[in-house]
Amino acid sequence: MIYVTRRAEFSAAHYYHNPDLSPEENRRLFGKCSNPNGHGHNYTLEVTLAGEVDPKTGMVLDLKDLKAILEKEVLAVMDHKFLNKEVPAFERTIPTTENIAVEIWRLLEPKLPHLHRIRLYETEDLYVDYCGG
Amino acid sequence: MIYVTRRAEFSAAHYYHNPDLSPEENRRLFGKCSNPNGHGHNYTLEVTLAGEVDPKTGMVLDLKDLKAILEKEVLAVMDHKFLNKEVPAFERTIPTTENIAVEIWRLLEPKLPHLHRIRLYETEDLYVDYCGG
Amino acid sequence: MIYVTRRAEFSAAHYYHNPDLSPEENRRLFGKCSNPNGHGHNYTLEVTLAGEVDPKTGMVLDLKDLKAILEKEVLAVMDHKFLNKEVPAFERTIPTTENIAVEIWRLLEPKLPHLHRIRLYETEDLYVDYCGG
Amino acid sequence: MIYVTRRAEFSAAHYYHNPDLSPEENRRLFGKCSNPNGHGHNYTLEVTLAGEVDPKTGMVLDLKDLKAILEKEVLAVMDHKFLNKEVPAFERTIPTTENIAVEIWRLLEPKLPHLHRIRLYETEDLYVDYCGG
Amino acid sequence: MIYVTRRAEFSAAHYYHNPDLSPEENRRLFGKCSNPNGHGHNYTLEVTLAGEVDPKTGMVLDLKDLKAILEKEVLAVMDHKFLNKEVPAFERTIPTTENIAVEIWRLLEPKLPHLHRIRLYETEDLYVDYCGG
Amino acid sequence: MIYVTRRAEFSAAHYYHNPDLSPEENRRLFGKCSNPNGHGHNYTLEVTLAGEVDPKTGMVLDLKDLKAILEKEVLAVMDHKFLNKEVPAFERTIPTTENIAVEIWRLLEPKLPHLHRIRLYETEDLYVDYCGG
Repeated sequence: MIYVTRRAEFSAAHYYHNPDLSPEENRRLFGKCSNPNGHGHNYTLEVTLAGEVDPKTGMVLDLKDLKAILEKEVLAVMDHKFLNKEVPAFERTIPTTENIAVEIWRLLEPKLPHLHRIRLYETEDLYVDYCGG
Repeated sequence: MIYVTRRAEFSAAHYYHNPDLSPEENRRLFGKCSNPNGHGHNYTLEVTLAGEVDPKTGMVLDLKDLKAILEKEVLAVMDHKFLNKEVPAFERTIPTTENIAVEIWRLLEPKLPHLHRIRLYETEDLYVDYCGG
Repeated sequence: MIYVTRRAEFSAAHYYHNPDLSPEENRRLFGKCSNPNGHGHNYTLEVTLAGEVDPKTGMVLDLKDLKAILEKEVLAVMDHKFLNKEVPAFERTIPTTENIAVEIWRLLEPKLPHLHRIRLYETEDLYVDYCGG
Repeated sequence: MIYVTRRAEFSAAHYYHNPDLSPEENRRLFGKCSNPNGHGHNYTLEVTLAGEVDPKTGMVLDLKDLKAILEKEVLAVMDHKFLNKEVPAFERTIPTTENIAVEIWRLLEPKLPHLHRIRLYETEDLYVDYCGG
Repeated sequence: MIYVTRRAEFSAAHYYHNPDLSPEENRRLFGKCSNPNGHGHNYTLEVTLAGEVDPKTGMVLDLKDLKAILEKEVLAVMDHKFLNKEVPAFERTIPTTENIAVEIWRLLEPKLPHLHRIRLYETEDLYVDYCGG
Repeated sequence: MIYVTRRAEFSAAHYYHNPDLSPEENRRLFGKCSNPNGHGHNYTLEVTLAGEVDPKTGMVLDLKDLKAILEKEVLAVMDHKFLNKEVPAFERTIPTTENIAVEIWRLLEPKLPHLHRIRLYETEDLYVDYCGG
């Protein structure tokens, strides 16, 4: 068993807001992330596949195929988008790094049988790992 | 003469739109950056001061003072903001990396007599240098 | 289960010395790290929490709380300190990257029930992972 | 149990070619990597050891010993080499990142009883993890 | 005047050899870089343009145009190539970082009237700047 | 004219203290950097040479020679040292990033006729440039 990780990047806007809480509670809980105009990040996504090396190619999965899947399933959905407004999953779910990572897993799992882990960096100083389940 | 550079980071949303152009021209010119919902970046700002070393402190400028100026003049204005909507300079000017760098120079120059250069990274692969004038 | 990692940095001085060994053995074993005047590093600490996403906040733990705990329990103890002289744990234990990571786990575990892993970089080329136990 | 990771770098040339496939299939499968003149990379290798801290040294393994093993067993074999032509393991096996990581494990395992994981970066955006077995 | 820098990456193989010197002199002068089988690097190229901000676009030059020029003039020539064998400029000139930077300037200057500087990294620890002339 | 930059790293301890000031003034001015026990950093040094390409070698200066000069003139003096206590230049001068950069220039200039610039990073977020004079 070997693990292959491919990195991709996307830029998106978001803000944090729980509609069940008062404006004051939102501000206290989320600080400047609660600004409803939104702010944004360069997200760095690492997608890890686990599998055996195919002796014909020397690879777990053809990297051109993996790149095409990432672009169609994740980047076309999230890159240069305002996540709260344009990604259906975040109409009712707060687009925290945790929830974005779970959503990316949900988008990729049906297309990537070898999917092992999603790592998502919001900044160099904050990242989330999710392995499904 | 010695040059001291301090790095700071901020996260902001923006989009590119020239109101004098048609929607088609905006899309052709700015591509996915023209999405009016906005997207965002982790901007990295480098502020360079040029001066002589003060023998009392061994520094060109007290770094605590510099940090306080950056926080008050730049981060309080741009961090966790939607630049087109919340920063007056970008009501009529497109918030490209070039124009944000020029605006940061304009904000800092009256407070930092030693100001020599603004460098602003939109991503690791794109940055702008501005030295006034 | 999801894993959230937060990075922090601190600067400290240290040296390597085992009082049960002769000066020659210390020099042979630890090389230039045995210089009793000390040298130093910019340490990069990564603290990983494992937990479920709180639907109220979309987070495993409030990041402002996590930041406050790291500052009080770790940075106030080790940042801008000479570890052998100022951190009680290293009066008799050599402050290697391994031992500093174990000590940081010991400091954080009572405050962070979700604590999963400590990663500590001494330089970009050397790091240690510790998960307790 | 604690995990210590040491990073090393080497530069090598390679190309991808499966002699059982036609030239067209090789080109389709491997794209510009199939150019038989070769191209190259700065590989970054991370070697992770798992063990207990030796109370005499405060370390899992003496880092000078680890460095000498990496230089003799890996860097002397692969650094500044054309992998397909000069490393016997790649005479018949395609030197993909996956296969190079497995070969480095095979070279290091007899010399490093604590060996836990090989991580190999071909670029910042592509890496492989291998833990034996 | 403002300076915009765009980064691009390419992977190539090369070796160092001066045909006017003896094999021994080549080995002494170039060390392991003189291995005629070749080795390789991930080169990072930074191209800097100097100009005024176009008020219509807020940019010095349309970044899509710049990217297309870099791909046609530099990456199509050097990416995934063995520089000594496949780039005519290096048939008689040694493809050192210095000489590759000068050649990239020569390729780009006729297409980029704003060209100000080429920076080329061979590794993170070695780079060359060239501004023409 | 072409500019070649070589990076090197060293680890050192230091503290900031001006003996002409009271303890209170030192604490106010230098904050936690004034702790006399000392703290430390991984310094990153970039040395830039300016010159013409030697057609015999394709280089401005033989990199093996440059590396040897850096190791003898700078690293042997500062690496794994407590700067205030072990480097004569800092017996009376505060070892700020500014002053360390000037001292490295002073050490290298007699050995490197092509010396153009010293850049010294104390952390990723703070660096100094010095070009002599």
